[in-house]
Amino acid sequence: MAIPIDADYARQLDRQDVLARFRDEFVIDDPDVIYLDGNSLGRLPRRCIGRMHDAIDRQWGERLIRAWGDDWIGAPQRIGAKIAQLLGAAADEVIVADSTSVNLFKLVMAALQARPGRTRVVTDELNFPSDLYVLRGALRLAGADYRLEVTRADDGMSVSVDTLAGLIDERTALLTLSHTAFKSGYVHDMAGVTELAHRAGALPLSLDEAAVDLAVGCTYKYLNGGPGAPAFLYLRRDLQERLVNPVCGWFGQREPFDFGLEYDRAPGIAHFLTGTPATLSLLAIEPGVDLLLDAGLSRLREKSVQQTEYLIGLWETLLQPLGFTLNSPRDSNRRGSHVSFAHPEGWRIDRALIEEMNVLPDFRHPDNIRFGIAPIYTSFADIHEAVRRLVAVMTERWYEKYPVERARVT
Amino acid sequence: MAIPIDADYARQLDRQDVLARFRDEFVIDDPDVIYLDGNSLGRLPRRCIGRMHDAIDRQWGERLIRAWGDDWIGAPQRIGAKIAQLLGAAADEVIVADSTSVNLFKLVMAALQARPGRTRVVTDELNFPSDLYVLRGALRLAGADYRLEVTRADDGMSVSVDTLAGLIDERTALLTLSHTAFKSGYVHDMAGVTELAHRAGALPLSLDEAAVDLAVGCTYKYLNGGPGAPAFLYLRRDLQERLVNPVCGWFGQREPFDFGLEYDRAPGIAHFLTGTPATLSLLAIEPGVDLLLDAGLSRLREKSVQQTEYLIGLWETLLQPLGFTLNSPRDSNRRGSHVSFAHPEGWRIDRALIEEMNVLPDFRHPDNIRFGIAPIYTSFADIHEAVRRLVAVMTERWYEKYPVERARVT
Repeated sequence: MAIPIDADYARQLDRQDVLARFRDEFVIDDPDVIYLDGNSLGRLPRRCIGRMHDAIDRQWGERLIRAWGDDWIGAPQRIGAKIAQLLGAAADEVIVADSTSVNLFKLVMAALQARPGRTRVVTDELNFPSDLYVLRGALRLAGADYRLEVTRADDGMSVSVDTLAGLIDERTALLTLSHTAFKSGYVHDMAGVTELAHRAGALPLSLDEAAVDLAVGCTYKYLNGGPGAPAFLYLRRDLQERLVNPVCGWFGQREPFDFGLEYDRAPGIAHFLTGTPATLSLLAIEPGVDLLLDAGLSRLREKSVQQTEYLIGLWETLLQPLGFTLNSPRDSNRRGSHVSFAHPEGWRIDRALIEEMNVLPDFRHPDNIRFGIAPIYTSFADIHEAVRRLVAVMTERWYEKYPVERARVT
Repeated sequence: MAIPIDADYARQLDRQDVLARFRDEFVIDDPDVIYLDGNSLGRLPRRCIGRMHDAIDRQWGERLIRAWGDDWIGAPQRIGAKIAQLLGAAADEVIVADSTSVNLFKLVMAALQARPGRTRVVTDELNFPSDLYVLRGALRLAGADYRLEVTRADDGMSVSVDTLAGLIDERTALLTLSHTAFKSGYVHDMAGVTELAHRAGALPLSLDEAAVDLAVGCTYKYLNGGPGAPAFLYLRRDLQERLVNPVCGWFGQREPFDFGLEYDRAPGIAHFLTGTPATLSLLAIEPGVDLLLDAGLSRLREKSVQQTEYLIGLWETLLQPLGFTLNSPRDSNRRGSHVSFAHPEGWRIDRALIEEMNVLPDFRHPDNIRFGIAPIYTSFADIHEAVRRLVAVMTERWYEKYPVERARVT
């Protein structure tokens, strides 16, 4: 049954939304802008403004070095423990440090060293390209015997547990995947994948309620942590003593302020810290995470599914006839919180949406317009209005103003 | 000849100081606090406040993802080019990224791979301990053949070129030193050290006007970049294509927004970038660097030497009789911008200075009180007053209030 396409219906859904009040917790200064790129850079939480002004003006400006003892020194663990709640992990299994790429490198090298004799790493082409770069660099460092197997997607969009099963054997040191594919939003069956890897004795690298071993993730997207905010690193408790961080630094030292010449690693997960944390960027993460904890992950997931269903419903009636293909799974169990639409004129349409229509999606090669839904602040009215403007771009041919050439930076 | 010990003389030196106006560029809210720890965390530049409020409130809050195209994406290179001026390097030889430890790891692994067959890394015990941890971790990863040689200090305080010469041979892959020793402030003869390393075909890792190959350094100390601000990485131009970054990420990719599955590294130094920069922490670096460029490095060095000489002069007359030993070189050519005084009661004296006297130095095991002079904002009156209060701590026995136990965090 087709869903109602009128704006009143969207407003009605917003009135029924139990998470609606969280929208006011974010800076939304220009009501005409429809922001659908929270999967690249989450919005600024209002309470983050005061927190950061205090961190800069008072903590750095006045407390100076004493602020380390106030609340800076424990921030990687404190914020990590909060993110652990979102992940369903224990408080002492998550820290925040460095970038996602650096953390992935640390865990990959540690995993390879924990599996001597196994020289294959399995991933898939749905993985975020930067993760593939990290893997290639790590394997080059590990030695000439090591090989990365990049599984092709079954249908361009998904990789099943069965497909992965055919690639995992006693040579496999590590299975590493992006939980949610960056182009299509395809979500791996993490419990199935993890079981598969464990059966083969390999270490899977991804996160879920599944009993995963290792994970890294980004804080500046759905966690609203600010541009390039440090990443989280998850290491299951029973592996914390066994794995060795290859990038050792004084924040992973047992007594950093003793300045001993030998590296005596800190107990628990702390030895996966390396250098001094980028503290301003680190502190900015906490207010957004607090909001997500307040909203509750299951309610957020429920709203996200409802919103992506709504968007796909509008696509069916309004966008499909205009030549847009749905490049995301129809099954909401296998779909994350963004929805991709492909169109032969995708790049020009994306430009017109941004420049003419104040709709901010993002674009992924070669022809995907990606609508990211952040249920903590995205409204149903946002989604309705974005589709209405996208229809206008097509029917009023606004995209024809824009050159066919590709973007360098979006 | 003894220097005058009266406060009038300090005020006279301040009146003659051509850099005095820069003090007003920094937040100095409490005139009673004497801050001598700019070598751990530099003060907050006033202009950084407006810059950061804009970065948070407007760029992140309103521009959102569009701010990447405004001025975020090029920040590692833009700020790197400014730091290059301070270092005497070319604009395209410096980037800002990650922590000092992560950058050191990248350069060390890259250097070892560029010198196959050479399995020795030479450093000294004056090196910052975190750098030693990085080296040990990197060498463990490189293989069982690799060995780190930690040269003992000749007199507990310095390591001469001759001493190093005896350790460098055709097995040496890398010579890596801290330009200025963190405890004593001893400054290596970098030109001599570099020539020595080159003669043996090894890569030296430190920075000077000398023709060094590789360097990393911290931005949150004398550069006033904010707590844990990302570090700089220097790579001489002719080595940029030859060395391979082992920690590959999408910011080092030739066309990051193409999202290609293969790593096609960016030309020049850019491939030593890894993940998304911690942008808030990165942007905070620029105002402090601008001030240093405005002041001029040679004038800053001249004032620093004058100030450390003045402090040592006061020590001679006022502190030496109270049992303080000078733990820094007397020769200003071999001395950086901090001066260490040792005392058997050092730890308790340090606590009393902070808690009773509002003087903020820092403490280094086992008995060093370190006075860091940041010539861009430290006044001669600060130095005079700090010494006056230190004398009061001793003569009025304020330190006896404090327990003998060691600190965990300072």
